[in-house]
Amino acid sequence: MKKILILGIDGYLGWALANYLKERGYEVFGMDNFLRRKMVKEIGSHSAVPILSPEERQKYIPFEVGDMLDYQKVEDVLQRFRPDAIVHFAEQPAAPYSMIDVQHAVFTQKNNVLGTLNLLWAMKEICPDAHLIKLGTMGEYGTPNIDISEGFFEIEFRGRKDRLPFPKQAGSWYHQTKVHDSNNILFACRIWGLRSTDINQGPVYGSKTDEMKEDWQRTRFDFDQSFGTALNRFCSQAVIGFPLTPYGRGGQIRGYININDSMQAIRLIIDNPPKQGEYRVFNQWIEKFSINQLAEIVKQAAEKIGLKVTIQALNNPRKEAEEHYYNPDNQGLFRLGLKPRGLKEVVPQTIKDLIKFKDRIEAKKDFIKPTIKWA
Amino acid sequence: MKKILILGIDGYLGWALANYLKERGYEVFGMDNFLRRKMVKEIGSHSAVPILSPEERQKYIPFEVGDMLDYQKVEDVLQRFRPDAIVHFAEQPAAPYSMIDVQHAVFTQKNNVLGTLNLLWAMKEICPDAHLIKLGTMGEYGTPNIDISEGFFEIEFRGRKDRLPFPKQAGSWYHQTKVHDSNNILFACRIWGLRSTDINQGPVYGSKTDEMKEDWQRTRFDFDQSFGTALNRFCSQAVIGFPLTPYGRGGQIRGYININDSMQAIRLIIDNPPKQGEYRVFNQWIEKFSINQLAEIVKQAAEKIGLKVTIQALNNPRKEAEEHYYNPDNQGLFRLGLKPRGLKEVVPQTIKDLIKFKDRIEAKKDFIKPTIKWA
Repeated sequence: MKKILILGIDGYLGWALANYLKERGYEVFGMDNFLRRKMVKEIGSHSAVPILSPEERQKYIPFEVGDMLDYQKVEDVLQRFRPDAIVHFAEQPAAPYSMIDVQHAVFTQKNNVLGTLNLLWAMKEICPDAHLIKLGTMGEYGTPNIDISEGFFEIEFRGRKDRLPFPKQAGSWYHQTKVHDSNNILFACRIWGLRSTDINQGPVYGSKTDEMKEDWQRTRFDFDQSFGTALNRFCSQAVIGFPLTPYGRGGQIRGYININDSMQAIRLIIDNPPKQGEYRVFNQWIEKFSINQLAEIVKQAAEKIGLKVTIQALNNPRKEAEEHYYNPDNQGLFRLGLKPRGLKEVVPQTIKDLIKFKDRIEAKKDFIKPTIKWA
Repeated sequence: MKKILILGIDGYLGWALANYLKERGYEVFGMDNFLRRKMVKEIGSHSAVPILSPEERQKYIPFEVGDMLDYQKVEDVLQRFRPDAIVHFAEQPAAPYSMIDVQHAVFTQKNNVLGTLNLLWAMKEICPDAHLIKLGTMGEYGTPNIDISEGFFEIEFRGRKDRLPFPKQAGSWYHQTKVHDSNNILFACRIWGLRSTDINQGPVYGSKTDEMKEDWQRTRFDFDQSFGTALNRFCSQAVIGFPLTPYGRGGQIRGYININDSMQAIRLIIDNPPKQGEYRVFNQWIEKFSINQLAEIVKQAAEKIGLKVTIQALNNPRKEAEEHYYNPDNQGLFRLGLKPRGLKEVVPQTIKDLIKFKDRIEAKKDFIKPTIKWA
């Protein structure tokens, strides 16, 4: 069976994927420096779902403690494990965290861009045939006034044609790192013949996957202003009886994906690798909603199970278009056979699950409010 | 008169610009960490033209010793000098140097991207009205099969239109840093209302500017495989009777610019700043030549003054298209009034000037050969 190395195995997606792949017989190994735990602690919050300590987790699924900025460590891990595929989640994943101040911006770009650059060199040295599956974001594209293709587009300009990388207009120092990574990875594939799938993923939501039957399998669930994604934050607010807080006019449209579907998509990507030397991009999202629609869906689902919910828009702390065209492609993963589930099906399950952790959300409710501003 | 801060004032372009602007009455201040001196020494070479020590230079034009990675230092310099415009040359400028190994690649991306990010934050804090003039490269675009506009292009895709950043396909870890910088600067202009001119400059050539009348004014001139640009390398080879060495088939076309014209262009940019919040791009080159044409021009010029010159193509150490379409715009600077001089006029002057430094080139001739490979 294929050997899969998960970088950032201790995070929201990392731990979920480790369990998902293990259940399906893949050989799983990982690395993490516990950055996510440290950052969430730094900003004062915690995971709504209690999770095991790193030491306890290591008893179930083996992983190395290490930092992507330590090149020798990265090389050593590749050398010892010799992965067929490397799933790279080991980045600072929060836009607001990257906007706090110059230190957080520089840390984010240093951590993400140089960590990935180390990985590319180590792959070239140790396992140039391995398949790099790199987590990017739909936020790399911004909100252009044209359709968004998957990574590349055929265009005509002044009577001549070419297939070129789709222009990127990312909206935070964090989102910019994903653009920088994409450019670096494309280059590495071109000069060294590495192969990579770059995943431009929309905001992920959901508190658990179908595989999480035991407590030890549960993954973290963040709901603070930095590490909580929109839908996860709304579900948490609903559970503690707090108003849902869309930012600004609420016309911001994004493509969302459930954590189960994210796992399924990554497995399909692992099982269907690109050719040697190929740099391939998938836009990984299932359904489009505006932020106002999202709030409305959560409100209705919560009310159905007896929770009282209001919606209260806040001044937008971000600089982003609040009304815009948005039509990104996502056919790639469906062509590989993706069978998704709908947001309206998952939201009630998520709210019900979170009710069990109501006290933990309540205890850190002050950290939901967006105090970090773009300007 | 305008106050101009030159970051990287001790380099090839930095020192030339300091002299050029000082002669024209601008108030000039600078910063440098002498990275260029250290790197050229590290690889074993030296400047063909002898230059003053940093301490001696500081007697003529004042500058601070400091590293762009030291945020507090950058803020302090902006605070004390309060520039109207900041010309940012303070980056690792060599593609081959960035390709040596993982350490040099990571150093290059760290130094360039994080240094510029520090500068953007410091500008936001201290002088948000100042005009950032940032040195990028034509190499950011790569060699697409369509015309290259200046930074942005109007396109139609699936029946809808937008003005978007021109796609980038840079060809080295160094060139990638310039792409990353461009993305970061565009974002800073958008969220903070900074104003910037991003210069995508072609390879610069020439050993001196008209302003360099005294020895202390001379700028460095590198001819080694890393820091010597193509034409400067060819002129140096001609002077020591070594074959000129185009890489590969020699059909690589680039847009070149003389060091005098580069100075003139930057002055025009300083005198015609963009509006607050505007991110503006100029493609800064004058004439297009293939690398074979360039070698032929140098050969003919050298033979006219009695030097014997041969041309001997080498295996291309780079991964790049050796035959390609190349039609980049450069109207922006001409619209501002640029009056350039031709390469065929400057090459004989450069060769004659370099003959004075023949022994210094001869002494380091082993470092011209391209030993650094892309893959």
